[in-house]
Amino acid sequence: MSVAERLTELGLELPEVAAPVAAYVPAVISGNHVYVSGQLPFVDGALAATGYLGDEVTVEQGYELSRIAVLNGLAAVASVIGSLDRVTRIVKLGGFVASASGFTQQPAVINGASELLGEIFGDIGKHARAAVGVAELPLGTPVELELIVEFT
Amino acid sequence: MSVAERLTELGLELPEVAAPVAAYVPAVISGNHVYVSGQLPFVDGALAATGYLGDEVTVEQGYELSRIAVLNGLAAVASVIGSLDRVTRIVKLGGFVASASGFTQQPAVINGASELLGEIFGDIGKHARAAVGVAELPLGTPVELELIVEFT
Amino acid sequence: MSVAERLTELGLELPEVAAPVAAYVPAVISGNHVYVSGQLPFVDGALAATGYLGDEVTVEQGYELSRIAVLNGLAAVASVIGSLDRVTRIVKLGGFVASASGFTQQPAVINGASELLGEIFGDIGKHARAAVGVAELPLGTPVELELIVEFT
Repeated sequence: MSVAERLTELGLELPEVAAPVAAYVPAVISGNHVYVSGQLPFVDGALAATGYLGDEVTVEQGYELSRIAVLNGLAAVASVIGSLDRVTRIVKLGGFVASASGFTQQPAVINGASELLGEIFGDIGKHARAAVGVAELPLGTPVELELIVEFT
Repeated sequence: MSVAERLTELGLELPEVAAPVAAYVPAVISGNHVYVSGQLPFVDGALAATGYLGDEVTVEQGYELSRIAVLNGLAAVASVIGSLDRVTRIVKLGGFVASASGFTQQPAVINGASELLGEIFGDIGKHARAAVGVAELPLGTPVELELIVEFT
Repeated sequence: MSVAERLTELGLELPEVAAPVAAYVPAVISGNHVYVSGQLPFVDGALAATGYLGDEVTVEQGYELSRIAVLNGLAAVASVIGSLDRVTRIVKLGGFVASASGFTQQPAVINGASELLGEIFGDIGKHARAAVGVAELPLGTPVELELIVEFT
């Protein structure tokens, strides 16, 4: 099954590639890797939510936001390699979670992205990951993700 | 001298690979690099400490915790490439330090990991590094490390 | 035009490579990539400023500090590959901004680095990027940058 078919089966579609919020590009190919810029949970050009986990944003909302952000990341990958069927491995996911004082469930938030990668790509979607809690994120987004993807 | 012999000489042994706290894997091979997931200072399945540097955790304790975390990271590397004797370079170490307001000695904390890599690997243990102070880390860990390792 | 000539045209020169503040090296070659350690806005061995964005450091100052830090990063690259004319792509820029509560303009700060890379390298200077706001940075620096550069 192609990745496009799998996305359809999951009821998902790749969004438009979000325009970078500054002087850089959404993704860069180097050798057989794609490095993806920090992805925010944009939906139709607007952040799906703002705020801090552990305060006005719940873990469940954060989980959903990280699904949205990683789908934006895959759209960025597709924009430079054409088809996601060329992906041979999701190598590394970095997750930054805007965290109110005392919030330590960053892994549960970034699982939204990790589990979606597993649903879409199966074994080649199993990735290395680091999730951390940060003080502030661009535009007030609760979640920002970065990706390294191997392709052929 | 093999890495295993060197570890023994240092009075160290590789721990069991810590199970990821979420939906990902401890390490991924891509080309001739291993990308290691965020490593916490787990000892026998429990965090060796929790809290913030600059508050209840001292720099000396943080130094020791980053030694523990990087040893866990090397166990993750060994779990995917078999023997650490295949390592040709420690490429990059990323260090995240849970930091109370005004704490700016992140480098002294992450030196625990950097110096241990030097003790174990010698010249090929000399790595690029970034150390930053973050608001919150998963499970309340004071330190989280990520690694990129080159192997043959 | 060589990179050296372009720097001269921009009125810039590569600084001395800043000594790492701890047990690591400024840059590591792995395959055809250079991984650059976290770079601070050192000028002649001293931080050009300290403090937090959104508090005592303005966005305009932060923009300038990230220009200084990325130039230090390019000096680190040159120190391991000899000439910046060997650079074939700026792959990834990571930007950490020490952020006071409520400061969300990290992209505007890191643009100082991104735009300078564009001025120096043109199309091959277009990079992937993640910018986040962190609680604290080493020595009280307002900005820390890390780089991955492809070369031939």
